Amino acid sequence: MVGGSAMFEGPVQDLIDEFGRLPGIGPKSAQRIAFHLLKAERADAERLARVIMDVKAKVHFCSNCHNVAEGDLCQFCRDPRRDPTQVCVVEEPKDLVAIERTHEFKGRYHVLGGAISPIDGIGPDDLNISDLLRRVGRDGVTEVVVATNPNVEGEATAMYLARLLDGLGPTVTRIASGLPVGGDLEYADEITLGRAFAGRRKIT
Amino acid sequence: MVGGSAMFEGPVQDLIDEFGRLPGIGPKSAQRIAFHLLKAERADAERLARVIMDVKAKVHFCSNCHNVAEGDLCQFCRDPRRDPTQVCVVEEPKDLVAIERTHEFKGRYHVLGGAISPIDGIGPDDLNISDLLRRVGRDGVTEVVVATNPNVEGEATAMYLARLLDGLGPTVTRIASGLPVGGDLEYADEITLGRAFAGRRKIT
Repeated sequence: MVGGSAMFEGPVQDLIDEFGRLPGIGPKSAQRIAFHLLKAERADAERLARVIMDVKAKVHFCSNCHNVAEGDLCQFCRDPRRDPTQVCVVEEPKDLVAIERTHEFKGRYHVLGGAISPIDGIGPDDLNISDLLRRVGRDGVTEVVVATNPNVEGEATAMYLARLLDGLGPTVTRIASGLPVGGDLEYADEITLGRAFAGRRKIT
Repeated sequence: MVGGSAMFEGPVQDLIDEFGRLPGIGPKSAQRIAFHLLKAERADAERLARVIMDVKAKVHFCSNCHNVAEGDLCQFCRDPRRDPTQVCVVEEPKDLVAIERTHEFKGRYHVLGGAISPIDGIGPDDLNISDLLRRVGRDGVTEVVVATNPNVEGEATAMYLARLLDGLGPTVTRIASGLPVGGDLEYADEITLGRAFAGRRKIT
């Protein structure tokens, strides 16, 4: 055990290694978390271990929209009050959560599982797109709101979906880009400001 | 479930909450890790849960030096090749690991569990200092190397220990402060450079 980079005794080093495999956690953070857990109450550490087990045992992805779900369908696909003819397409479940917070949308969702990104080797076949087409045909979808991120990958994905859905029935819309509310024109980047200008609307 | 900040279904939100309690992990990171685990192989997630349980079940703090230990004593206190009359005092187990990597020290360690910091409400009584005094008396310690961090708290702790141990037998030494090896005089901060100058030694 003495010498090399694994300097702690067995289980402590194992814990540091496992945390180091998680996204966004470097070796220093992993060590810090491991020592935090070592000093923590046993019940607290056990609760963390239990929720990790629970999530793998109980949580899956919705068979309809690929959101996270405890049963076969997620809470939105199960909810009869949500309009199945309006579908909002997002990259990840966390984006869906952000939209829910606005209380602006009462339809259903479709989670792609990412965005088209040739540089990362992610093409349309790696996303949940065929299931979206199936829903459009089956549920008589009238509008598909593409709410992928307003970056290169998200825009490319939006364009791809718009072309794919063209002529299949639903109107395809895109969430607006523009200045953030409470933002300052002076400090806006020129691309955002350009979009805000191009997307100007008549004041009614 | 819909509305408020807890937007995911039970176990996913529980997992996000538990990760959010760990040091250095904000809400966004917690969410990212939770979704990483959701997508991960079940065996990988279970291994993480298991090492958390293992560390709480198997790892404690050494009854002699307060380093992490699987049994009653840590690997250094168990090792008869380590000289018990030389004791290196560190703030945390991770500092001990850093010193071990240098292969410069063949004595034993003593982990204080922090440094004196009135601003954080940490006084001498909150550190493992009484056990250090006991060891000094019992093991015929000849040198105590104070390797607390070279910052305000670490220096205060070093001064405190030097005064406390004065007249009890061992020589109390302090690790050197100075320019880092490979460093550049031009870019050194003035306090470090001042210390390096004051700590100059005859070239032999």
